[in-house]
Amino acid sequence: MNFASDNWAGAHPAIAQRLMEAASGFSAPYGASDLDKKIEQRFNELFEREVAVYFVSTGTAANSLALAAVNRPGGVSFCHREAHMLEDECGAPEFFTHGARLAPVDGENGKIDPNNLKAEIQRFPPNFVHAGQPMAISITQATEIGTLYQPEEIAAIANIAKEYGLPLHMDGARFANALVALELTPAQMSWKQGVDIVSFGATKNGCWCAEALVFMNPELARDLPFIRKRAAQLMSKSRFIACQFEAYLHDGLWLELARYANAMAKRLQMGIVNSKHARLAWQAETNEVFCVLDKTLADKLREKGAVFYQWNPPRAKLGLLAEHEVLVRLVTSFATEAEQVEEFVELLG
Amino acid sequence: MNFASDNWAGAHPAIAQRLMEAASGFSAPYGASDLDKKIEQRFNELFEREVAVYFVSTGTAANSLALAAVNRPGGVSFCHREAHMLEDECGAPEFFTHGARLAPVDGENGKIDPNNLKAEIQRFPPNFVHAGQPMAISITQATEIGTLYQPEEIAAIANIAKEYGLPLHMDGARFANALVALELTPAQMSWKQGVDIVSFGATKNGCWCAEALVFMNPELARDLPFIRKRAAQLMSKSRFIACQFEAYLHDGLWLELARYANAMAKRLQMGIVNSKHARLAWQAETNEVFCVLDKTLADKLREKGAVFYQWNPPRAKLGLLAEHEVLVRLVTSFATEAEQVEEFVELLG
Amino acid sequence: MNFASDNWAGAHPAIAQRLMEAASGFSAPYGASDLDKKIEQRFNELFEREVAVYFVSTGTAANSLALAAVNRPGGVSFCHREAHMLEDECGAPEFFTHGARLAPVDGENGKIDPNNLKAEIQRFPPNFVHAGQPMAISITQATEIGTLYQPEEIAAIANIAKEYGLPLHMDGARFANALVALELTPAQMSWKQGVDIVSFGATKNGCWCAEALVFMNPELARDLPFIRKRAAQLMSKSRFIACQFEAYLHDGLWLELARYANAMAKRLQMGIVNSKHARLAWQAETNEVFCVLDKTLADKLREKGAVFYQWNPPRAKLGLLAEHEVLVRLVTSFATEAEQVEEFVELLG
Amino acid sequence: MNFASDNWAGAHPAIAQRLMEAASGFSAPYGASDLDKKIEQRFNELFEREVAVYFVSTGTAANSLALAAVNRPGGVSFCHREAHMLEDECGAPEFFTHGARLAPVDGENGKIDPNNLKAEIQRFPPNFVHAGQPMAISITQATEIGTLYQPEEIAAIANIAKEYGLPLHMDGARFANALVALELTPAQMSWKQGVDIVSFGATKNGCWCAEALVFMNPELARDLPFIRKRAAQLMSKSRFIACQFEAYLHDGLWLELARYANAMAKRLQMGIVNSKHARLAWQAETNEVFCVLDKTLADKLREKGAVFYQWNPPRAKLGLLAEHEVLVRLVTSFATEAEQVEEFVELLG
Repeated sequence: MNFASDNWAGAHPAIAQRLMEAASGFSAPYGASDLDKKIEQRFNELFEREVAVYFVSTGTAANSLALAAVNRPGGVSFCHREAHMLEDECGAPEFFTHGARLAPVDGENGKIDPNNLKAEIQRFPPNFVHAGQPMAISITQATEIGTLYQPEEIAAIANIAKEYGLPLHMDGARFANALVALELTPAQMSWKQGVDIVSFGATKNGCWCAEALVFMNPELARDLPFIRKRAAQLMSKSRFIACQFEAYLHDGLWLELARYANAMAKRLQMGIVNSKHARLAWQAETNEVFCVLDKTLADKLREKGAVFYQWNPPRAKLGLLAEHEVLVRLVTSFATEAEQVEEFVELLG
Repeated sequence: MNFASDNWAGAHPAIAQRLMEAASGFSAPYGASDLDKKIEQRFNELFEREVAVYFVSTGTAANSLALAAVNRPGGVSFCHREAHMLEDECGAPEFFTHGARLAPVDGENGKIDPNNLKAEIQRFPPNFVHAGQPMAISITQATEIGTLYQPEEIAAIANIAKEYGLPLHMDGARFANALVALELTPAQMSWKQGVDIVSFGATKNGCWCAEALVFMNPELARDLPFIRKRAAQLMSKSRFIACQFEAYLHDGLWLELARYANAMAKRLQMGIVNSKHARLAWQAETNEVFCVLDKTLADKLREKGAVFYQWNPPRAKLGLLAEHEVLVRLVTSFATEAEQVEEFVELLG
Repeated sequence: MNFASDNWAGAHPAIAQRLMEAASGFSAPYGASDLDKKIEQRFNELFEREVAVYFVSTGTAANSLALAAVNRPGGVSFCHREAHMLEDECGAPEFFTHGARLAPVDGENGKIDPNNLKAEIQRFPPNFVHAGQPMAISITQATEIGTLYQPEEIAAIANIAKEYGLPLHMDGARFANALVALELTPAQMSWKQGVDIVSFGATKNGCWCAEALVFMNPELARDLPFIRKRAAQLMSKSRFIACQFEAYLHDGLWLELARYANAMAKRLQMGIVNSKHARLAWQAETNEVFCVLDKTLADKLREKGAVFYQWNPPRAKLGLLAEHEVLVRLVTSFATEAEQVEEFVELLG
Repeated sequence: MNFASDNWAGAHPAIAQRLMEAASGFSAPYGASDLDKKIEQRFNELFEREVAVYFVSTGTAANSLALAAVNRPGGVSFCHREAHMLEDECGAPEFFTHGARLAPVDGENGKIDPNNLKAEIQRFPPNFVHAGQPMAISITQATEIGTLYQPEEIAAIANIAKEYGLPLHMDGARFANALVALELTPAQMSWKQGVDIVSFGATKNGCWCAEALVFMNPELARDLPFIRKRAAQLMSKSRFIACQFEAYLHDGLWLELARYANAMAKRLQMGIVNSKHARLAWQAETNEVFCVLDKTLADKLREKGAVFYQWNPPRAKLGLLAEHEVLVRLVTSFATEAEQVEEFVELLG
């Protein structure tokens, strides 16, 4: 019963198989192979426009290089207070931008509140050197707590971004899970709402190591080839990433895997809702379910073999827990087995 | 007939197979899995001491984080004028050290000359803030031009490093090729001669993506976990690197692959020596052969399907070429086929 | 009637005079002159222990290099949400620390609340690389809003610093104003409470350009000579800073100037308290007075020649203003004339 | 007899006097005062075009921020092998550009050889990410060894800069000394030959602390206000720099001081030429004279009270010295007294 994280899973068989097939033969390194080119083309189709796409090795790299591409001296990027880039990347975004700051913005349900965003941006009057200068806005889709920005919510933030001339970045570590939950196309969830850059994650959804940084406007990525190489993120045998994307994007596999993971989360959630001993912390919209358990129940579940992380309540929900309770996060993936969900739900009682 | 580079090859079947096997099941991410721990232990055995080992995604990352670990403000690292970190990493070492400089040191045969090294270090008197302060020495084994430091040559540089209190780093992108050529153990080629840090490359010798940064003295790596994470080099599904190393190091596979690549290079070299139309630029000691061709012969070889890079002569050998000649680099790997070597040699005439 | 800021004043005549006298003759540059050495010695006396002292050209430089001296990868420093280094230094502290983060801590009256501080630090469990690692704590004395940490309040924060092994920095841009208000010695206001590093500002209190970075434990400043030079803060004719400090610290001039500025602020405050049309925003403890005015009154004052800044209410006091009101900051200095205070108070009505 | 460096002198009386006069009154800080604006205007006149000018506190800051303004990821700047920014700034240019590299270019007489320059630039083919990308060219006028680029030599380098689309920077720490020696106007010595950015130094020529970074094309300095503030180089009481420039540039004082210093150097040089015991290392063209002395004579001169630095021979002149000889540098300034020159020459014998 492993619900620790979707990165505890390995690789989907179709992706592992594709890697195996790609092992032989010679191929131009550093992104110059035919396969690399073909996958770049595949991203154009996926996003229904000519994009610039760069493979990198981690989601943290994708997020950090997105900001590095639009970097400004004294720059300030706005993201949700609980954003991964602020809480879980050890300062990588600041490091790769030579110290540009991440300004936390509050908002309910893991999502930036547009009014708060505007108020924060306004703390930086144009040309006021003491404060620094706004540089970018970043949203996470699906959010860190498994919720979703509706398309119109993305558009609302994009409008503010446009108003202040700021590029809008989307951390899509769980892009696929969000996409299938919202029943949108990649274009609809990104540039059609005003998103300029996407960290397109595939690792959590069935790849070994496949992250793509996608720029809707290639001009914005002008320096990215140098930025990526200098960041030690230009892999020599890059076809091993390209071929993962090939299998991942082939015939809708990626959407199927995300739908499966989301469905498993729904079953988990149903079990929690029906349990007398657990309660849902908030509505799960993708593949992460947060629930409140009595500490003794949490311990019991662990004893019985369930693996999951205890979680700090978001600052906006500090009153969530009674003293004897804990918040736990349950993550599903392509590798989650329905039997394990059932077993867990049964143990919940 | 592909002699472009050892990173044009894919993955050795045994390594691809091991990856396939590791695809299923759940495993702690970020280097915390049992397999990660087991491979760390394997490195201890390999180096016959307790080392600290960190997986990263590229050789550039390994080299850059090695320097970042020993970084000093105003720091200056000494490497050969033709070193990869100086010529081919787009400033990554300087970037990851926040601007610490790489000072080029001249020397014959791609190797740092100890006298030149000493003279360069002495340009930085202790506590003279204007010049900056020495920070590290880095050598490449095998060198960029396929030659080798003999153990006593490594020791001579290590003695200078010790005299000035500087850590000695070895860029071992082709560590295995050097090791088998010299018939040494990893310990003999590293810490027993005074090397403190090794960039242990496996990608060029048959892995997809497997680079390890090895510190002989774990204390020197105290901050590395944070340095690596901040550098976006902590991979979530790190077992996919660990399992490559498992197969790579199992039962001497890595040594076998390196011996094979070196042997192919020897055959190529023999063919060049015996050719009336080509001449060896210098003695190849590992899996890189450099030869001087008439431009028309180089063109003809390419037409016949040979793939290789033209190379800039090292600054120490600027007089190497007549006007109608070019220097070309021929690299062999585990994937080089003997027939292709034969075919190439035959075409040389 | 200039109450815009204490840096709108020029230099005190005694300091300008001392500069004039120092203009002739030859003197070793880069901090090596006898005068430099003498002033360093003077700082030892001042702080009643052997300190390491470094002159820099701005307060921002002092704060940034203080953090740079204790820098760690993925480092996080804790300061008040309204701290100068967070709000008014254009990201310089992050820049000089290669991206170490400033984590805002809330607290009443411009002061860090120890409980909040502890809670924030605890968000960074030891060796949890994802979050980063605590690096330093910084307090501002006097605070950005003219209030003061009492000695026991400093000690309370220092205890937390010690508990977590973090150096404690004091931004003393208005060190003198705080010192005389509290009737403490420099030692009592710094290391005797547990402060490790002081940005000792003299510019705002009557110098042209004289900022000193003082380390209570010189060992902590081991790399500072290189850090400062690399930061372009090692001035060649450093005696022109040294001689300002000489005059400033001579015969208690600095304390006298601060007492005068504070007294002028007291008179302003008294006038506000007695005014029917203005009200004090909070109790002024040094040379900055914050008051709430009707917008029309603020406009009228400006028309009559008063110079001052409108101020954003601290986030902890967002309900401070009615819609027709503004918060204004009034700063006094050694150059404030009593007549101008009287004139201003009279205009307040 | 102090010939150690022009930064051993203090401030010229007229400049010290002007500082004294500026001490009283209130004035907008951070470069916003009327005086600041007036001096900016003065620079427009000086350079006969609308320039963007930024005051900073050190020459190292001016040089470093010049490069920061034109920074590129993986950037490489070309300067002479003996350039101050390469040899004497503790890596500040690399630090402020987040690791952009300084590539040394050889050339006789302290000057970049255009052919060498071109050859070095060509080592960086466009879009070849491994090597990095050219970013800027920097020349020093007068050079580190007291020689001068003739206008046509500047133009020759500027032509290469244009050919490769690179901005051309001039380190003018001794701009005035060069200007009067060449009998050129500032425009003639800079943009009329193709120079884009000038580090306009005044400190060495009679100011306390006055360095200006001048952009011929203000568009190139678009981000400089933020770059400077983030670099901790925006001085609050900036009028104290502005007023130094006011006196310095008033009525040709700066040219007069430079002419005087150069004249003193000429006398020194004449004395050396006529001496039987010393010989000129090379022709001095400004205020730095390099001569070869017998070690025993150097010691004797020091005993008699002469102050000067022994110098490392440029790499291009390593054969300059016999074993018993040393190279010494003798620098004159506005403060050098003719009597001391005479005394020194007499001691030479």
